[in-house]
Amino acid sequence: MTLARWIGLPLAAALATTRASGGAMDLMPLPASLVAGQGAMALGDSFAASVEACRDDRVAAAAARLAPRIAARTGAPFASGGAGAAVLAIRCGAAPHPVQQAVEDESYSLSVTPRGARIEAPTPYGALRGLETFLQLIEPGPGSWQVPAVTIDDRPRFPWRGLLIDSCRHFLPVEALKRNLDAMADVKMNVLHWHLSEDQGFRVESRRYPKLHELGSDGAFYTQAEVRDIVTYARARGIRVVPEFDVPGHTTAWFVGHPELAAAPGPYRIERSWGIFDPAMDPTKEEVFRFLDRLFGEMARLFPDPYFHVGGDEVNGKQWDASPRIAEYRKQRGLGSNEALHAAFNARLVEILARHGKKTAGWDEILVPTLPKEILVQSWRGPASLAKAAAGGYAGILSSGWYLDHMLPASAHYAVDPGAGEVAALPEEARRLVLGGEACMWTEFVTPEMLDGRIWPRAAAIAERLWSPASVADVENMYRRLESESQRLEDLGLTHRSAPLRMLRRLASGRPSGPLEALADLLEPVKGYARSEARSYTSRTPLNRLVDAVRPESDAARRFARLVDRFLAGGEGRDEIVLQLSTWRALRASLDPLLAANPLLAEAEPIASDLSSAAALALRVLEGTVEPTPEDVALLDRIAAPRAELLLMVAAPIRKLVEHGKHP
Amino acid sequence: MTLARWIGLPLAAALATTRASGGAMDLMPLPASLVAGQGAMALGDSFAASVEACRDDRVAAAAARLAPRIAARTGAPFASGGAGAAVLAIRCGAAPHPVQQAVEDESYSLSVTPRGARIEAPTPYGALRGLETFLQLIEPGPGSWQVPAVTIDDRPRFPWRGLLIDSCRHFLPVEALKRNLDAMADVKMNVLHWHLSEDQGFRVESRRYPKLHELGSDGAFYTQAEVRDIVTYARARGIRVVPEFDVPGHTTAWFVGHPELAAAPGPYRIERSWGIFDPAMDPTKEEVFRFLDRLFGEMARLFPDPYFHVGGDEVNGKQWDASPRIAEYRKQRGLGSNEALHAAFNARLVEILARHGKKTAGWDEILVPTLPKEILVQSWRGPASLAKAAAGGYAGILSSGWYLDHMLPASAHYAVDPGAGEVAALPEEARRLVLGGEACMWTEFVTPEMLDGRIWPRAAAIAERLWSPASVADVENMYRRLESESQRLEDLGLTHRSAPLRMLRRLASGRPSGPLEALADLLEPVKGYARSEARSYTSRTPLNRLVDAVRPESDAARRFARLVDRFLAGGEGRDEIVLQLSTWRALRASLDPLLAANPLLAEAEPIASDLSSAAALALRVLEGTVEPTPEDVALLDRIAAPRAELLLMVAAPIRKLVEHGKHP
Repeated sequence: MTLARWIGLPLAAALATTRASGGAMDLMPLPASLVAGQGAMALGDSFAASVEACRDDRVAAAAARLAPRIAARTGAPFASGGAGAAVLAIRCGAAPHPVQQAVEDESYSLSVTPRGARIEAPTPYGALRGLETFLQLIEPGPGSWQVPAVTIDDRPRFPWRGLLIDSCRHFLPVEALKRNLDAMADVKMNVLHWHLSEDQGFRVESRRYPKLHELGSDGAFYTQAEVRDIVTYARARGIRVVPEFDVPGHTTAWFVGHPELAAAPGPYRIERSWGIFDPAMDPTKEEVFRFLDRLFGEMARLFPDPYFHVGGDEVNGKQWDASPRIAEYRKQRGLGSNEALHAAFNARLVEILARHGKKTAGWDEILVPTLPKEILVQSWRGPASLAKAAAGGYAGILSSGWYLDHMLPASAHYAVDPGAGEVAALPEEARRLVLGGEACMWTEFVTPEMLDGRIWPRAAAIAERLWSPASVADVENMYRRLESESQRLEDLGLTHRSAPLRMLRRLASGRPSGPLEALADLLEPVKGYARSEARSYTSRTPLNRLVDAVRPESDAARRFARLVDRFLAGGEGRDEIVLQLSTWRALRASLDPLLAANPLLAEAEPIASDLSSAAALALRVLEGTVEPTPEDVALLDRIAAPRAELLLMVAAPIRKLVEHGKHP
Repeated sequence: MTLARWIGLPLAAALATTRASGGAMDLMPLPASLVAGQGAMALGDSFAASVEACRDDRVAAAAARLAPRIAARTGAPFASGGAGAAVLAIRCGAAPHPVQQAVEDESYSLSVTPRGARIEAPTPYGALRGLETFLQLIEPGPGSWQVPAVTIDDRPRFPWRGLLIDSCRHFLPVEALKRNLDAMADVKMNVLHWHLSEDQGFRVESRRYPKLHELGSDGAFYTQAEVRDIVTYARARGIRVVPEFDVPGHTTAWFVGHPELAAAPGPYRIERSWGIFDPAMDPTKEEVFRFLDRLFGEMARLFPDPYFHVGGDEVNGKQWDASPRIAEYRKQRGLGSNEALHAAFNARLVEILARHGKKTAGWDEILVPTLPKEILVQSWRGPASLAKAAAGGYAGILSSGWYLDHMLPASAHYAVDPGAGEVAALPEEARRLVLGGEACMWTEFVTPEMLDGRIWPRAAAIAERLWSPASVADVENMYRRLESESQRLEDLGLTHRSAPLRMLRRLASGRPSGPLEALADLLEPVKGYARSEARSYTSRTPLNRLVDAVRPESDAARRFARLVDRFLAGGEGRDEIVLQLSTWRALRASLDPLLAANPLLAEAEPIASDLSSAAALALRVLEGTVEPTPEDVALLDRIAAPRAELLLMVAAPIRKLVEHGKHP
């Protein structure tokens, strides 16, 4: 056994280098500091984690999961322990509080030499993060799987790194949530913001007010045992669970069983459409606060986290404006606007929650200077409110720019930074109030089978922005590592790659699905709120069309665009482009049997047809034989426009090829 | 609502026609009689099964699973019942025995009109089979999912339609078995032959003799609760579970805890290699029969099926020959051969099992004319023993030709027929003793993640052979329907398509896996016992190489071969062939980043390299510019030979193209 010789390298250089062993240490998120060593620790066929110097039950459980996780990564049977096993020694301090707080020390150091590996961390949280880094380092070696020699010193840039999951618009089974908790832990996210009540459903069993879930959920709710199961599962991974019960708006489902809480008389029915609706609680009734006191008291016992999220977004005030009783109340109290009324309502909630031992969190609408400084503001309407909150002495987290349901590319989310812009200009102590942020998965267009694919791998780019130093910002490098991370997540049991494929094959209706997969690889769903505008959706609308099966971001299109740019810059890669275009030229015809088998695919026909025509045009231009006709120009415009709620992502590079051909 | 107008069509014609609705009634297995009607029953978004006229708990449970299964098939949320729901009425008689027998009436009729559907069956078994047919009929319609109008009268050709799963060579978790029971029910298989003891492991908890599983399983065994769970799960689907405890050979793992049972002194260790081994029980010791009496008594209570399988295969007799005590015993009893000794041993087992209420089944080695006629012979060494058994008055089932681990194409298994050959020449009453057959999944080269892909969809072709009339034998038609069935199985939760893809992506080690998938699509594992001969495997050898990730049968290669045949016959399809070959010509270069990332892929390099060269050669020949050189000929020989335990399945059609070009 040779002694490891340490080579100091700056972080970027260490990561840009593809190492001799073939691996590339595709960590995600990147650590604060990494020094590559020489050689590697071979894993052989057994593995032992020694946790004697770390007594936390969570670390011991995570260490016990290492061998099966390594087996899943490598496809090789890994035994736990035994003579000659590769050893990872873990040393950590005790957790400072019985319940994980919003700010904890999550730092750790990890060193790997050919003789063994060691994680040291002041808390169990750091040890858990270090274990994930260790797992990410595993790579195929020449003789066996291995962990490259390395020294890592790491800590997060922001303490609050969350993912919001909306279990209301579409109900999501416990198993789906657990998978996503596994994935969050893999990329060092530490908050599940669980959106649990909405116009479309009240999703938690309440023993105090059972009509809430019995009449307000269509039978799709989490029992209290299931909630405890999720909270325990998250806790074991160093993840907090912050529940959101959105009030006073977004509450139609509450009113089905409890119309007395509403500002306008009922009866109410569970909302089936998407959007912003009028029903809101009556903020003038003591009965409402008594109700919330008891309900929140019950829920506060179920969720141990210090924070309790009360929503507070999108109250349109229509029911309040229409109520003479509320008008009178406002007049009496001198509340000049609905905003002031809402603020008074929130002040009562803060008080109630404080009595139940909780700090209040809410969307940025709740931010008014009269509220006590313990509240936390979640910025969704734009980054300005985050800076405003911090300047006013309020803690804040960013979600603006991180709405996963907007179907934006990972690069767009990656460019968003809670510490940039107006926040960067704030004084140090105000900047420190910016605790981090949350990716948001709203589920109007997400069923359980689509969930993983709508979150991952894009959320990993957000996780990196929240963990890694601000200087980690190279987009190409991020995409390279994201591909590795995506595979690691599948090994962990996520279905973001397998489920979309299964949906495509269902659309192929028993015919060979290759041509449909090739088309889908080039498509993305329309962005932002465009789907809601495209047709009338409800919670009953089947989400089983092509737009539901294609992934949010087309890797194939990104690669083709890069190929075209390189070719147009220097002439390289012509053969590859010609081969690619030839495949697309033949695509439309190869779809014939699928189009015949399933009427749901009819909407794909014009897209495929125009793609094949445009590919043929580009091929003719590459052969130098064509000056594009007005029909050709119309064709290029057509493929650039959304159809069937889909975008053909190779439209732009094909246009570039054609236009470049015109002016040689 | 229009009245359904029935159109009588012969079965073959009805199925060959692609119907106006786009669907094609890709049923698998095909029913005994099918008459297509006009129109279809629209499914809308809710569904109700009425089981009032069928009181069996299994049918009620299966009916309750319909709505979620339809949802999984369609990707649309299907509610159970409600006003306006499409209705399937089920009428069935009671089961004639409390425990499912080897021969039951499984017939049913299914009629679907635009106004509703109805299943009638004399037994719950028939109703369960009819429900599966109903689910298979669901197809995308113009406005909603639908079930085409049809009248089906159906019954199986053979009563025993089984799948053997070997839980010994690699242990398989309960969930994996349940998935496969779902799949079996989907294609109307009705026997799980569960191979539970082997040289490599004794896989069931025995309370009577706990050292069996404690010392003989490496901790990988089924608890009795898990066994009951599997038996219950199977029963609910009309599937019998026949346990196999293989004696007197294949018993090394028994002897670790109980060396006193063996014909030679121990100590013994769990066998790690594959093959036929010497250890065998001592058939001269009363102690052995007392032990088996108690153990089989315990197991007989766990498995309610009338049959109990005692194996009996591959006793090489070496330990018997070496034992003076056994030689003396043979001499005393006048047992002239080890075969006679084995027969005497079996006679005792038959007696013991009869006392525990069981009939004995065994592999064809057990067949001697002195055994009582109640035994059942499973033919694995060739179809001759099946005919011999039937001629001698013994019931039999066929497995020869249906070893799924031999990696043969579905067409090969489809061509095997338990009623053909020597059996067909037997008198009617002997022919009726041929009860059916079993596909066999031996797991030397199968881990849990590979299990589904090694069984499905090929086993569905065997299921059809056992259910459908003998005249159903069109291979092209079978493959078309197999593609649909394969998709239905994935919808049911099987992983035969998703898991191999996941394994390939693991091999791609975080690099874009497209080129590797394209190569894998053209490869198959070597056939028969060639893997065992290629290198030394043990139960600890990781099964994570390319040969483990490729599927047993290359659909892409089969399609390319057909394309080439059509082109060479008439000149059609040249463009498609050129495009395909161009893709393969570029394949080797596109693999570069993957080969650099994972040393496990090094063995794929020569295959990919030669494929690209051969594709380039074929392209040159197609352009008419080349007379193949001796190097070209050597290249074509190389790609036709196995490498890395893999076969390149497009080698033959490429050679055809090249040779055809030589003699225009």
